[in-house]
Amino acid sequence: MASENQENVRGLKRVGVWFKGCLEKIMNVVTNAAKDAKKLGEEDPRRIVHSLKVGLAITVVSLFYYFDFLYQGFGVNAMWAVMTVVVVFEFSVGATLGKGVNRAIATLLGGALGVAAHRLASFAGEKIECSVLMLCVFLIATMVTFMRFFPKLKARYDYGLLIFILTFSLISVSGYRDDEVLDMAHRRLSTILIGGSATVFICIFICPVWAGADLHKITASNIEKLGIFLEGFGRVYFQLPNDKNSENQTSMDDYKTVLNSKGIEDTLVNFAKWEPRHGKFRYRHPWDQYLKIGSLTRECAYKFDALNGYLNSDVQIQESCTMMSSECSCALRELAIGIKTMTRSLSADIHIVKAKTSAKKLKSLLKTGLWPDTDIFDIIPAVTVLPLLIEIVSCTVKIADSVHELASLSKFKTPDEKMIKQLSLERVKRTPSIEGSHSFSVVVE
Amino acid sequence: MASENQENVRGLKRVGVWFKGCLEKIMNVVTNAAKDAKKLGEEDPRRIVHSLKVGLAITVVSLFYYFDFLYQGFGVNAMWAVMTVVVVFEFSVGATLGKGVNRAIATLLGGALGVAAHRLASFAGEKIECSVLMLCVFLIATMVTFMRFFPKLKARYDYGLLIFILTFSLISVSGYRDDEVLDMAHRRLSTILIGGSATVFICIFICPVWAGADLHKITASNIEKLGIFLEGFGRVYFQLPNDKNSENQTSMDDYKTVLNSKGIEDTLVNFAKWEPRHGKFRYRHPWDQYLKIGSLTRECAYKFDALNGYLNSDVQIQESCTMMSSECSCALRELAIGIKTMTRSLSADIHIVKAKTSAKKLKSLLKTGLWPDTDIFDIIPAVTVLPLLIEIVSCTVKIADSVHELASLSKFKTPDEKMIKQLSLERVKRTPSIEGSHSFSVVVE
Repeated sequence: MASENQENVRGLKRVGVWFKGCLEKIMNVVTNAAKDAKKLGEEDPRRIVHSLKVGLAITVVSLFYYFDFLYQGFGVNAMWAVMTVVVVFEFSVGATLGKGVNRAIATLLGGALGVAAHRLASFAGEKIECSVLMLCVFLIATMVTFMRFFPKLKARYDYGLLIFILTFSLISVSGYRDDEVLDMAHRRLSTILIGGSATVFICIFICPVWAGADLHKITASNIEKLGIFLEGFGRVYFQLPNDKNSENQTSMDDYKTVLNSKGIEDTLVNFAKWEPRHGKFRYRHPWDQYLKIGSLTRECAYKFDALNGYLNSDVQIQESCTMMSSECSCALRELAIGIKTMTRSLSADIHIVKAKTSAKKLKSLLKTGLWPDTDIFDIIPAVTVLPLLIEIVSCTVKIADSVHELASLSKFKTPDEKMIKQLSLERVKRTPSIEGSHSFSVVVE
Repeated sequence: MASENQENVRGLKRVGVWFKGCLEKIMNVVTNAAKDAKKLGEEDPRRIVHSLKVGLAITVVSLFYYFDFLYQGFGVNAMWAVMTVVVVFEFSVGATLGKGVNRAIATLLGGALGVAAHRLASFAGEKIECSVLMLCVFLIATMVTFMRFFPKLKARYDYGLLIFILTFSLISVSGYRDDEVLDMAHRRLSTILIGGSATVFICIFICPVWAGADLHKITASNIEKLGIFLEGFGRVYFQLPNDKNSENQTSMDDYKTVLNSKGIEDTLVNFAKWEPRHGKFRYRHPWDQYLKIGSLTRECAYKFDALNGYLNSDVQIQESCTMMSSECSCALRELAIGIKTMTRSLSADIHIVKAKTSAKKLKSLLKTGLWPDTDIFDIIPAVTVLPLLIEIVSCTVKIADSVHELASLSKFKTPDEKMIKQLSLERVKRTPSIEGSHSFSVVVE
């Protein structure tokens, strides 16, 4: 009796332990998820706002079902409005507009062609109506699917082509059962237009996220990352004293995110082209110039990767090297601030001239071989780093040129006294991580 | 009279010229499009097959509308089947399966929760039913939209989360008008399952495109591109005679596509994880190892970019340099062939040992400064290239190690006599461009 009791107690305890373990695991998962969610929200608070906007848009559009006078017009077709909101609402205005316009035009064209196919098939007579429709659907679906492989169409109209196939198939095929095809096509189009315009309205007028502005920020912050690396490089390479070494090391590694920035930049340019005039960006802002700057920035970052291998050697001709890297660093940071604030960076050119001069000096030194001390053992590490640094100078010059081109194309302001003060404050701020917010698809050409 | 006639003739001529110009322009556009289409088809003929498969799948599923005994079961809901085919059918099996599974599970869960919300709202009484439903839709839509920002969920379940919001909103909101919610949810789910399974069936059993196999090919061809560059580098750098110089230059530039390969690799790994066992790939093939190899390959390509700047200088210690770059080139090409044919590359190690030995020699030469000729003017270009080449050797060693790891993880074969013969044939073939076929989206973490 006693042993049975003991066993019961033991069994209960075991169940209790198991239950506790399960509960702890669940609690762990929940707290971890909550922590992740908090981090995501803090990284970019616009994510929270976006989620609320989507909730609002769906709720607003679903009002069609609740109010009789709205419901009577569309009936079950109100479904398409809800669907459009869910599918079209994207993080940035550009992405939303792109999808919305694609969907609207594709529905119009697909619907029209579907009605035409239906008419054609009815003329052909009842016996072969079914075959004619099937042939039409097969041909159109095959052709348009193949068109989706064209790089230019894929980049901007991929979603539209998909919706075209969808609408055409739905309208022409449903027409076989329901003779009011025109009516059906009309109702589908108008509900989609209603859903789409509600989406676009909420997306643009409540805390809009502009893909163009984000592209602008990312371009600036990538150039800034290069500047931070170069500044740190001079210090670490010559083992100069540094009060906040470990923190600096992490921001020096930031340049590595630049290496893989092509995807997000391509996508954002694509989105930005859909966006209307906003903020400091005019209607025909030179978005393609950002791609050019981006590719030069990456080219420079590739060189850093090679330079990074030499961090632990020591060099004699310290002065010119430090000069070159710090001047380049200053120039890059000036350019980044110039882009951020949309002003012409005047002092960048001064830094570049200085960097160029010391590069020229070192180049001639390399060629003539007249070294301050001629011990061959000492100069070898120097000659490995110098050519790379010289190349980085010429890369910086290229970046500066393309930023100047952007400045003249999009009419950046020339800074006055007051702005220069603000600019020096700007130096401290750092751009939050925005890459993760845009869900993006890239087209490889 | 005569002048009037002349004017008429002139006018007619002008119209004729204008008409001819228009016709020529249209013909131009059409012929260009046809040329592009032909090129796209030749580049990767699977694109044509894919288009035909999509056409076939839509036609098959639209049969539901044409046959009475099929139509009676589902009625207008057959629409969802057509829609599923259009939306889910992707280029590769992995992408299709991923989307299909996401859509099916999300519809099931969203539908179930929608029915539950409808029941809950009906219990609450008619007066506040509408408000309760609106609140539910708002909360769920907001929460799930925010969940789409979690990098891990976004990578694999983004589409599912979207469809979850969609189904939940549709079912719970429609329930307000139509009391047969359960029936509606059931019909939506079953038509989607029918459309989805038809899609998956056609995708897998008619000329399937495996994302995993394409990832495998891309990884191999990227390593091969590095090998081609290094081989050409030795020749161009030392200005050795070369019979087919211009052709070689273009294939030397191929390494530049490796620089931006992260996006496509991430996507294909994501798709490949959805795929069942196929060809030489087991169920739990170590797909993540490809990401590792890919990132090492890119790291090596970054170094090439720095090396590319020194193509037009001249160096004295030709022998060791040529040795190092040609041995690395051979090793990389062997590794690429090993991956392509899924065999362990034995001879790669021999090349690597040779490259390492000459790298070691040069390193000690660099350190001691005992040069064959001590004229400082001559050695400077050498010391700029050598450290880079030495780093490329160590990069090659890393790539070889990770390829060996892949070989042991996925049990590559050890080649026998007969296979070695085949392998030498393999050397001539080049992989077609497959990057453009996969439409891919990348998740930045």
